[in-house]
Amino acid sequence: EGPIYDTVALIGLGLIGSSIAWAARRAGLARRIVGHARSAATRETAARLGFCDEVFAAPAECVRDADLVILCVPVGAMEATARAIAPALKPGAVVSDVGSVKAAVIEAVAPHLPEEVHFIPAHPLAGTEHSGPEAGFAELFDNRWCILTPLPGSDRGQVARLRRLWEGCGANVDEMDPAHHDLVLAVTSHAPHLIAYTMVGVADHLRRVTDSEVIKYSAAGFRDFTRIAASDPTMWRDVFLNNKEATLEILGRFTEELFVLQRAIRMGDGDLLFDYFTRTRAIRRGIIEAGQDTAAPDFGRVKP
Amino acid sequence: EGPIYDTVALIGLGLIGSSIAWAARRAGLARRIVGHARSAATRETAARLGFCDEVFAAPAECVRDADLVILCVPVGAMEATARAIAPALKPGAVVSDVGSVKAAVIEAVAPHLPEEVHFIPAHPLAGTEHSGPEAGFAELFDNRWCILTPLPGSDRGQVARLRRLWEGCGANVDEMDPAHHDLVLAVTSHAPHLIAYTMVGVADHLRRVTDSEVIKYSAAGFRDFTRIAASDPTMWRDVFLNNKEATLEILGRFTEELFVLQRAIRMGDGDLLFDYFTRTRAIRRGIIEAGQDTAAPDFGRVKP
Ligand SMILES: NC(=O)c1ccc[n+]([C@@H]2O[C@H](COP(=O)([O-])OP(=O)(O)OC[C@H]3O[C@@H](n4cnc5c(N)ncnc54)[C@H](OP(=O)(O)O)[C@@H]3O)[C@@H](O)[C@H]2O)c1
Ligand SMILES: NC(=O)c1ccc[n+]([C@@H]2O[C@H](COP(=O)([O-])OP(=O)(O)OC[C@H]3O[C@@H](n4cnc5c(N)ncnc54)[C@H](OP(=O)(O)O)[C@@H]3O)[C@@H](O)[C@H]2O)c1
Repeated sequence: EGPIYDTVALIGLGLIGSSIAWAARRAGLARRIVGHARSAATRETAARLGFCDEVFAAPAECVRDADLVILCVPVGAMEATARAIAPALKPGAVVSDVGSVKAAVIEAVAPHLPEEVHFIPAHPLAGTEHSGPEAGFAELFDNRWCILTPLPGSDRGQVARLRRLWEGCGANVDEMDPAHHDLVLAVTSHAPHLIAYTMVGVADHLRRVTDSEVIKYSAAGFRDFTRIAASDPTMWRDVFLNNKEATLEILGRFTEELFVLQRAIRMGDGDLLFDYFTRTRAIRRGIIEAGQDTAAPDFGRVKP
Repeated sequence: EGPIYDTVALIGLGLIGSSIAWAARRAGLARRIVGHARSAATRETAARLGFCDEVFAAPAECVRDADLVILCVPVGAMEATARAIAPALKPGAVVSDVGSVKAAVIEAVAPHLPEEVHFIPAHPLAGTEHSGPEAGFAELFDNRWCILTPLPGSDRGQVARLRRLWEGCGANVDEMDPAHHDLVLAVTSHAPHLIAYTMVGVADHLRRVTDSEVIKYSAAGFRDFTRIAASDPTMWRDVFLNNKEATLEILGRFTEELFVLQRAIRMGDGDLLFDYFTRTRAIRRGIIEAGQDTAAPDFGRVKP
């Protein structure tokens, strides 16, 4: 259908920034893609891989001609980034982001942007445990959801245009209220990540006791947790600090429930356990039917 | 190298029983493989798929000529199964099992076996979330560990022979004390499964509130938990009821640790979170270096 934006500026060129560049190029969604990264190392890698037409050392330089600016930095860096680019933004430009938390990012970014730009927050629900400019690939967003959380009074035409960009990148797009987004993500992403980090931390302590047995015998379930718990520490620190209440609320429910199951184990209440484990199976079926995971045993994982 | 046993009898023809049959055939480890399953449906499926030379309705009939009998039923069914086969066992036969728990299985099985058979408990650390006779495949045990927990005074020659069978099935074999096995598995398998079941249970309750959003947006981490929590309810009920102490001990440590991280989130202690999330990464690297998981992003999972 031809380019949706003339110039797209990506601020932050890690997994998500570089994947947007590859996906936008694959579908010809922008006439020109420019990028900025904080470190010279990342800028050099980006230039070498060639997913941007031009890479800038200064964020303000990078956004000067952009019709769409996407902030692809950790949630805790959004405010400083918004401040840095604000004076250079073109009137009428769209500013968006990919942060895993929405209410806190809106609070951090919106006050710094000039009146004449359109701020439309977004969050693509796609990622891997890898990070950095070499981790990106064009297919990352295919058949994944991207959630837009437009502000009251957002220009509907610009929202529709951003939606077309994400659809062009392969995603399905939904709209949601920011607070609701943060609650849903606390359940589907933030609490599971914290729990995985915790379980791996427990095993790490025990590893010092049991030598390397925890690693050696990890294939019996534990290794799945380690993939999630290998995700970028900066990104996840920022997620938890910026989605505190919803995450703590879900973790509270989790602990309550865990105590019920622990007690059933202690008391030998096999019926409670059996019923519980039967109900949770239905959710897996739902996810496979919704096309959000593969039905292949063990994710179709290849043996190393 | 030719067959290791003349006749192998598999009692229970689900995921593990059928996979042993396929793997033993692949490598010609037995001259004859016979099997028993409780239900006519499973016996018919087994006969149709052809992984056994003969399928018996009566467990005693099945073991009569066997040099090796492997109990492949849920941990809670081991005792009754041992009772049923005991009178028919051939003197000098080896009896083994594949139960995910060892101390409780030894306690349940050993007293019922005649003196003239060799009981050598075992546990292959391999599985998928699927179960039943159609879920098995020859490669299940390749490059996975199988842990033998021989009793004091076990015939070392028979232990070595059983080790060769598992190596022939593709596994690496280790020996361990039963209590130590149960503690290691509580960390690497039993506690992670209970935690995954719990997280999916929490989401299931919330799903009734948030409609199907939990399923729709599951790709952000949660779906990994649902795979584990789709495992067979009978098998897992039996595991928890039979490895109570070690599982509760690890869950206690887990809760303690979770409270530390919850508090750090509440207090805004970003340094604690960052350091914690950095340490857990090392475990993932260890697992990949040990050849126990793939380094491909997202397990190399194919999109549905
Ligand atoms: N990974 C996921 O699964 C995922 C999924 C959906 C959304 N997100 C969101 O996407 C955003 C980026 O994540 P990512 O996975 O792409 O991370 P990443 O691969 O680590 O890349 C982060 C980028 O941000 C830059 N950056 C880091 N700290 C900065 C700071 N203080 N100031 C300025 N720039 C900084 C980095 O620059 P250098 O390379 O120069 O250090 C890098 O270019 C985050 O907001 C995250 O919440 C992530
Ligand atoms: N799945 C894993 O990941 C895994 C890994 C390592 C070890 N194990 C252990 O392997 C054993 C079997 O697990 P699996 O995954 O193969 O299970 P499965 O696929 O569900 O098969 C279980 C087999 O046991 C039979 N069975 C079930 N309850 C029985 C009872 N009360 N009396 C007699 N037979 C009964 C079933 O007969 P019907 O088909 O006729 O019902 C079926 O043939 C368990 O002890 C488990 O702890 C499992």
